[in-house]
Amino acid sequence: MLKNQRIEPPFFEIGPKAYMYGDEMVALAKTIDIAAKKYDVRVLLTPQYTDIYRIAQSTENLLVFAQHMDSLPIGRGNGFVLPEAVKAAGAAGVLLNHAEKPLTFSEIKSCIKRAEDTGLYSIVCTDSIAEAKAVAELSPDIIVCEPTELIGTGRTSGAEYAKATKEAIKGVNPDIQILQAAGISNGRDVYDVIRAGADATGTTSGIMKAADKEAMADEMLSALRRAWDEVH
Amino acid sequence: MLKNQRIEPPFFEIGPKAYMYGDEMVALAKTIDIAAKKYDVRVLLTPQYTDIYRIAQSTENLLVFAQHMDSLPIGRGNGFVLPEAVKAAGAAGVLLNHAEKPLTFSEIKSCIKRAEDTGLYSIVCTDSIAEAKAVAELSPDIIVCEPTELIGTGRTSGAEYAKATKEAIKGVNPDIQILQAAGISNGRDVYDVIRAGADATGTTSGIMKAADKEAMADEMLSALRRAWDEVH
Amino acid sequence: MLKNQRIEPPFFEIGPKAYMYGDEMVALAKTIDIAAKKYDVRVLLTPQYTDIYRIAQSTENLLVFAQHMDSLPIGRGNGFVLPEAVKAAGAAGVLLNHAEKPLTFSEIKSCIKRAEDTGLYSIVCTDSIAEAKAVAELSPDIIVCEPTELIGTGRTSGAEYAKATKEAIKGVNPDIQILQAAGISNGRDVYDVIRAGADATGTTSGIMKAADKEAMADEMLSALRRAWDEVH
Amino acid sequence: MLKNQRIEPPFFEIGPKAYMYGDEMVALAKTIDIAAKKYDVRVLLTPQYTDIYRIAQSTENLLVFAQHMDSLPIGRGNGFVLPEAVKAAGAAGVLLNHAEKPLTFSEIKSCIKRAEDTGLYSIVCTDSIAEAKAVAELSPDIIVCEPTELIGTGRTSGAEYAKATKEAIKGVNPDIQILQAAGISNGRDVYDVIRAGADATGTTSGIMKAADKEAMADEMLSALRRAWDEVH
Repeated sequence: MLKNQRIEPPFFEIGPKAYMYGDEMVALAKTIDIAAKKYDVRVLLTPQYTDIYRIAQSTENLLVFAQHMDSLPIGRGNGFVLPEAVKAAGAAGVLLNHAEKPLTFSEIKSCIKRAEDTGLYSIVCTDSIAEAKAVAELSPDIIVCEPTELIGTGRTSGAEYAKATKEAIKGVNPDIQILQAAGISNGRDVYDVIRAGADATGTTSGIMKAADKEAMADEMLSALRRAWDEVH
Repeated sequence: MLKNQRIEPPFFEIGPKAYMYGDEMVALAKTIDIAAKKYDVRVLLTPQYTDIYRIAQSTENLLVFAQHMDSLPIGRGNGFVLPEAVKAAGAAGVLLNHAEKPLTFSEIKSCIKRAEDTGLYSIVCTDSIAEAKAVAELSPDIIVCEPTELIGTGRTSGAEYAKATKEAIKGVNPDIQILQAAGISNGRDVYDVIRAGADATGTTSGIMKAADKEAMADEMLSALRRAWDEVH
Repeated sequence: MLKNQRIEPPFFEIGPKAYMYGDEMVALAKTIDIAAKKYDVRVLLTPQYTDIYRIAQSTENLLVFAQHMDSLPIGRGNGFVLPEAVKAAGAAGVLLNHAEKPLTFSEIKSCIKRAEDTGLYSIVCTDSIAEAKAVAELSPDIIVCEPTELIGTGRTSGAEYAKATKEAIKGVNPDIQILQAAGISNGRDVYDVIRAGADATGTTSGIMKAADKEAMADEMLSALRRAWDEVH
Repeated sequence: MLKNQRIEPPFFEIGPKAYMYGDEMVALAKTIDIAAKKYDVRVLLTPQYTDIYRIAQSTENLLVFAQHMDSLPIGRGNGFVLPEAVKAAGAAGVLLNHAEKPLTFSEIKSCIKRAEDTGLYSIVCTDSIAEAKAVAELSPDIIVCEPTELIGTGRTSGAEYAKATKEAIKGVNPDIQILQAAGISNGRDVYDVIRAGADATGTTSGIMKAADKEAMADEMLSALRRAWDEVH
């Protein structure tokens, strides 16, 4: 966990995975950048490694995150993602342990430490209450709570799961921020999750598979702000 | 193998691995870019993924290569390196199967196919005569012949190994270009390898660990040109 | 490749994978053992590691193979499969590089070497003509030719693929034996493959999913013998 | 965690890894079996997969554990270790997440569940207080606490680490049994660990590298009993 530094809620993570890249990604990032300012919300965008620099250079409000990184030190390691290189490219943080790139517990621990030392936020995915609690012991900045079986399905995980994971994580370390994900398809889903008490949420397919990606991003960020204002 | 397109020899691969990144990498790339033009040699540079775009934008003569990529198609796959993203960032090609990132045979095959379809050169590392011959069956653009046990030792693999691998590869597919590596520490080593008949060579530690990296790069590229001219 | 030792054709590989184990596996192995003698054919059976010893002790004619092994030397390596332990349990050989357990080229090479040194036959799976040729360079005892996309489908790969892989492998090393697999569902399929010129074939689902496994094994081995006698 | 069933302390884990196999392993197992009875202690032995059946058949008091297993269900999965096959071979349990075979958190969770369903004890290695606490959330039968993070720091694991991990684990689930390992070289070390409050300890190299393995095993089990009696 970074010292004296945290992402101000509400925030939203957009994960392009391997769906989008290059010019199209940069163009969408610019639109989201404007929407993030308009609604005064923080947006974490996790593009391909190769797009981190371009997006960091082209936007003002976005927090660019790497989709993954390795814990190796400076030196050998052809093909691995060096934390210092991620930072130097302009990233604000790194996503770790996504269901499509699961890590051993020791590697999650090493990567969180490397993130701290490099000045990167760490956001760690977990797919059960037990894993959320376990990862909380490692003090990342943010924990994503997302039951793996719901990823990409359009079904939300529900207020019960959100409540249980929140209690579990805050019980270990109240400073960890929580992102409730899984099944966000539109502004309504965003609204519901935040109304249910979350600080943050996010999506991949909700935007990547939308007919009008820019409109959908705007709808979601607008809903994020509205729900947040009603709760707080 | 890309159609109607090949890298004109002599050429030289510089592999920064996880030794160098960001501004320092870009600065060195610019110096090498000038030297490549001065000596009229082709230089393949394989920086961290996050530096591909910056270097491609900052140089004119370098061929920027990714250190690795995955064969996944556009879509899901958080944390994986998408070929289309590598290409869009300005890369000319991709390095595959390095001893520090070994791939299964099926994955090498898939990646070479993805490189072809995306318009990227593929350069595949092999660590024995048998593997060189095997990979030649897959028709990558370039094969690196480098006995694993010599990597980073400063000992060269010798003319005999170079000759045997060349015969093996050309026997399968004469269009594949060959890069003889392992143990290149200075200009003299470069000179010897090219004099022995190679089209190309390369180094990581020879430059990364040099007291004056820029001077060493210049020395090596100069030797490359000199040896090439004497042979041809 | 083991010296002065080869499996006399025709032979047949039965791969229980993780479908069968323990008493049921031993019982089926005993039935197959009798059928192997009755039809004078060689049968390679690849049970779970934990069943190798029991089956080797309970049968006379079967050649028990491990489903995989690691190339590590005697010493550290908790959880890895030691070649010497496989041999000591009574195995005759080891299967390598199955599509469900793909290996890097270097690891295939190391495992074939370890098999030779330990006195184990090596049988290596390949899923394309290029890979078959490539693996042939490493001189395993047997190469399995099985296009991955057909595994478990009940569709056979056809005489053309069999002919092409045979030529490719024999062109590299005529001493390597070849097993043509993929899509063997019944005795008729076995008959056709051997009639088309193969020395050997095999199946997993053809027997594992049969209503009467013992009857199906008998039918297949009977067809193996009949086809072999008609050809030779 | 298995219901209504636990290993009676004091107990001791001996991990042959890939050091020993076959007849020599069975002979040592028989000697340990006698010593286990003589000192009325429980001994967990984790041989190569291929030796599980032989040792289970040849001993009366030993608890044979697999060095690892996979969470796959019955069916496809060539080369993977099926839980049901491990059980059928006579194993009492399975070791998971050893530093030489680290697993993702999701896989540890799946394997503990599979162990429960198959009737196998699960013993999970952890290398930090955080990981011990994390794994405790998954309710395995036993957690191994072995502080690799202290290696090279000048601090000894000792009573402090044992106390901290015990408190962490028991705070999550008091039914989990704890094995304190790392650096057990002789009977004196065993004595000290148990005197400091542990229920169990274990070794690999302490016995595998001893000049007289059988004598060392006897010395350690004797010390285990003596220390236990003095404490309780």
